[in-house]
Amino acid sequence: MRRSQLFIKTRHNAPSDETALNAQLLIRAGYVHKEMAGVYSYLPLGKTVLDNIVQIVREEMNAIGGQELLLSTLQDKALWETSERWDSEVVDAWFKTVLQGGGELGLAWTHEEPMTRMMSHFISSYKDLPVYTYQFQSKLRNELRAKSGLMRSREFLMKDLYSFSRDQAEHDAFYEKITEAYMKVYSRLGIGDITYKTFASGGAFSKFSHEFQTLSHVGEDTIYLHKAKKLAINQEVLTDEVLVDLGIAREELIEEKAVEVGNIFTLGSRFSEPLNLYFTDQDGNNKPVIMGCYGIGPSRLMGLLAEHFADERGLVWPEAVTPFVVYLARLGQEESVVKAADTLYQQLTEQNISVLYDDRDERAGSMLNDADLLGTPRRIVVSAKTLEQNGFEVKNRRSNETNIVNKEELIKSLA
Amino acid sequence: MRRSQLFIKTRHNAPSDETALNAQLLIRAGYVHKEMAGVYSYLPLGKTVLDNIVQIVREEMNAIGGQELLLSTLQDKALWETSERWDSEVVDAWFKTVLQGGGELGLAWTHEEPMTRMMSHFISSYKDLPVYTYQFQSKLRNELRAKSGLMRSREFLMKDLYSFSRDQAEHDAFYEKITEAYMKVYSRLGIGDITYKTFASGGAFSKFSHEFQTLSHVGEDTIYLHKAKKLAINQEVLTDEVLVDLGIAREELIEEKAVEVGNIFTLGSRFSEPLNLYFTDQDGNNKPVIMGCYGIGPSRLMGLLAEHFADERGLVWPEAVTPFVVYLARLGQEESVVKAADTLYQQLTEQNISVLYDDRDERAGSMLNDADLLGTPRRIVVSAKTLEQNGFEVKNRRSNETNIVNKEELIKSLA
Repeated sequence: MRRSQLFIKTRHNAPSDETALNAQLLIRAGYVHKEMAGVYSYLPLGKTVLDNIVQIVREEMNAIGGQELLLSTLQDKALWETSERWDSEVVDAWFKTVLQGGGELGLAWTHEEPMTRMMSHFISSYKDLPVYTYQFQSKLRNELRAKSGLMRSREFLMKDLYSFSRDQAEHDAFYEKITEAYMKVYSRLGIGDITYKTFASGGAFSKFSHEFQTLSHVGEDTIYLHKAKKLAINQEVLTDEVLVDLGIAREELIEEKAVEVGNIFTLGSRFSEPLNLYFTDQDGNNKPVIMGCYGIGPSRLMGLLAEHFADERGLVWPEAVTPFVVYLARLGQEESVVKAADTLYQQLTEQNISVLYDDRDERAGSMLNDADLLGTPRRIVVSAKTLEQNGFEVKNRRSNETNIVNKEELIKSLA
Repeated sequence: MRRSQLFIKTRHNAPSDETALNAQLLIRAGYVHKEMAGVYSYLPLGKTVLDNIVQIVREEMNAIGGQELLLSTLQDKALWETSERWDSEVVDAWFKTVLQGGGELGLAWTHEEPMTRMMSHFISSYKDLPVYTYQFQSKLRNELRAKSGLMRSREFLMKDLYSFSRDQAEHDAFYEKITEAYMKVYSRLGIGDITYKTFASGGAFSKFSHEFQTLSHVGEDTIYLHKAKKLAINQEVLTDEVLVDLGIAREELIEEKAVEVGNIFTLGSRFSEPLNLYFTDQDGNNKPVIMGCYGIGPSRLMGLLAEHFADERGLVWPEAVTPFVVYLARLGQEESVVKAADTLYQQLTEQNISVLYDDRDERAGSMLNDADLLGTPRRIVVSAKTLEQNGFEVKNRRSNETNIVNKEELIKSLA
């Protein structure tokens, strides 16, 4: 894409009330716009990053048999009363609203209830199980504080998958499978080596749930890391009993700050019983379906990736999510430079290499700063000087290494 | 996809409170699920149809220079007070909610205000114009009645594009361009011949706006059609003055019922003035940006396509939006039949022909009824009888023609 055809502009300063580095950088680079505290809109490049994250998660959920659908935001009060989660004393994350004709509605902060009720139309026999359904849906949560930018916002995109199994063994096997799928997602995003499966509170129906925690100094959570075993324990559940359970000594653990980038829960029959999701087993017995739920927030991941990989010059996107692989900066308006840059842009595009071509008549410093702030993995400079050297200047955004490379080498290295 | 791996089941009856044929059929066929009056969730096949419609609209918006982004649902009260559209006496479609810490928020029913405010960060000079931004966003509207299924729901997907132009002439040129783009969308969806550009009320800033109205006996609107001129006039604005303006005699018009499938508005400076979206022109003058807004509802279109093309046996999807081109029904469990059907499924899939393969052990009548209800353009039957005839039975869902076709012809006709 030509930069001259993209409406965004970079900014020197983020809004003064924005304290989170991820949001500051994303706003300055024109990826997101802050509507108000905890509410962000996605500009074209930000939407592309978000879509790229979504696609990675989608591929891994499809690979384990997930079926994608899309549930509603508006929620039926009577349904949530049945599961005893309507009362705002019980769930303080609710936003609620009122119909013109009278009657309250909720705005979805999660979807166990509607998903369970909906599935009761499709599950009646053991032959209908197991089933795995998921969606990417924009959740609304009435957070009291929203100071972590995209990492804790009042409106955010969530992938929530729900599993419906015949029994605990079938559930447990899927739970292991999705654990692996989650780790594949984090690896593809470039944070596999700093993301740990973490023991956390299991709620009423299982001893533990699991979180996926990515080490980060801006994390809101404190975890205790066992590097050798590649696992962690959330501070909330670190007791002597848990240590014995896991066969771990307290001294082997290191305290770290971390960001929760996913969670997986065993729900048992917590929702299937009150919402009447039963099936007939092979022997003709009526049994509640055994459920699990599994969340990953693409918008939170976008915030984490923005903040984790950033340096003092701006964003540094992993290849898997970057909106463009190359920022092509044309320094100078001489005919030879314009021609060389136009030709390179065309050739890279023909090779399916995504390029943001800065074809504006701007100061060199401003263009190079923009390239750094926007954070594409490669920056290519075309100028009278690089043409004299019969090549292009290529900078690796992460390592900051710069080389003069000729066209054949360049296309080969990017293809 | 194998039907045995898809969790949906068809139903004989839609919910008793569902009066709209589009929703009845979509629910019976397992495309959507009704959460409550005016609120629908999209099951896998329904989500695919919706995605297919979205992609057609996206391609046509990109082709005229649209830049895609995604704004938030949660809305800032102060912003809408500035444009005098916060008060529920003025706008009765609002759903509103309250923050835990205090303060009201709105839930977006449209996005002129946030889009205008956001663009004020990116537009300051004539060099920044024109710009066209758009999104696919889930709108919430507090409809008093919601009885038309997906054609008028309380939560629906909307494509809203906003144009930002230097002056009226630039605006008018784009208005013509997007009119053509809309007609391309309707043609691709198979309703081009029954969709009319319709003169409607222009509000405060222009004499007319335009709707796109598709003829349908279930339409909520009454329009007056001029077939020769391929235009229509909404009943709301049909006056002698308008007829004179358009050079049309009353007798030339035919009254028809129609569904509004799009609308385009000239906004002038209605939002740019109060929300301070000004630019400096070539002579250094400060001027308000001239705006327009342009809506198409993919979920309403899905409802319309479902209802318009349906027959007594069920849905009949246009090729452009169908979730699968082929419903492959395997009648019988004999080894030769299973092998022939498996092989055909594999070969069609390899040719990138999308197939829903009904590999279940079900009664023939039930499978054939399902194929008709689900509405894929082609139904292929593999059975001992068709194999005896050295071929497959192919039915055209729309014409109901049935033929025995050999494999080469079949693949050739579908490729």
